[in-house]
Amino acid sequence: MQYPEPIAKLIDSYMKLPGIGEKSATRLAFFTIDMEEEDVKNFSQSLLAAKRDLRYCSVCGNITENDPCIICADKGRDQSKIIVVEQPKDVMSLERMREYHGLYHVLHGVLSPMEGKGPEDINIASLLRRLQHNSAVSEVIIATNATPEGEATAMYISRLIRPADIKVTRLAHGLAVGSDIEYADEMTLFKAIEGRQEI
Amino acid sequence: MQYPEPIAKLIDSYMKLPGIGEKSATRLAFFTIDMEEEDVKNFSQSLLAAKRDLRYCSVCGNITENDPCIICADKGRDQSKIIVVEQPKDVMSLERMREYHGLYHVLHGVLSPMEGKGPEDINIASLLRRLQHNSAVSEVIIATNATPEGEATAMYISRLIRPADIKVTRLAHGLAVGSDIEYADEMTLFKAIEGRQEI
Repeated sequence: MQYPEPIAKLIDSYMKLPGIGEKSATRLAFFTIDMEEEDVKNFSQSLLAAKRDLRYCSVCGNITENDPCIICADKGRDQSKIIVVEQPKDVMSLERMREYHGLYHVLHGVLSPMEGKGPEDINIASLLRRLQHNSAVSEVIIATNATPEGEATAMYISRLIRPADIKVTRLAHGLAVGSDIEYADEMTLFKAIEGRQEI
Repeated sequence: MQYPEPIAKLIDSYMKLPGIGEKSATRLAFFTIDMEEEDVKNFSQSLLAAKRDLRYCSVCGNITENDPCIICADKGRDQSKIIVVEQPKDVMSLERMREYHGLYHVLHGVLSPMEGKGPEDINIASLLRRLQHNSAVSEVIIATNATPEGEATAMYISRLIRPADIKVTRLAHGLAVGSDIEYADEMTLFKAIEGRQEI
């Protein structure tokens, strides 16, 4: 005996999500049946709306409803700086800081020979085009993650951009604010000492 | 800065699912945007269909498209036995065995004073009504889980049914087939010795 078709299909759909196996999908499907009808309708509609109404900004690659996105369209922002990040989520994190008023560029990934991801698989070409057509940019701040792939991607991009006489910087690595030296790993401590500053 | 509305709404929807916090919901939402349009449409429709087309069988409480469900409607099944389970999932597990051809009754929970769940909160009344109106039933097999709540529920139901001169049994507890005695917990070993059978 199989599950009735509507629930079997829903289980299949949940299983397409990352990190959700058959057991979790079954649990979520049964949970869905017991949810308020209103909530299920909203869920169903928000899935379609997210897929239908969201696109990637043709300038910076960030996720947006309108193209170009509100950051690229905002002429009040500092047009001389571009922060390069891996994912749209990173833009949100940096914006939450409320201290940076320049532009962004979203790579949608990092160089990863292990996963067969080369320069043409991430948004590097569009960054170079952007720099060629916009002489206002004086600094590119590379904010890829502090992973081996993130570091390699940062080095690769900086080598491409530097000849264009644009300053290329990288976010500082060191101790997180509020963290204990006791619990910091060796690499972080090394970076913190290497990047020490006079006070 | 906030996420664009379509993705913020989708994150909210994912967060309504059990065990999914803001970080996971954000991850799932971004994953959804990169999914095939076809898959997202199917997901959206299967949510609505599961909520719209599934109901609980008015006889046994199992999940079904048609009322009564195909098990209750199948007169070829052994009408003299009813297995009482906690959840619809348990019916599927027992059916997969292909050895039982009787009927089922789904409680949709167990008695749990800690969670404020009393006899009126689970499908016990409908089981008693079923037994009163169906003299063909000669045995009720209680297959609630081997948890304290499952045991208490089994005892409660057996006490209600026994006066009606219907045999009440409980699934055997003991060592799982293929398991090692070395790794069995004390309660399981105790139950295995208690329920030992002549060979």
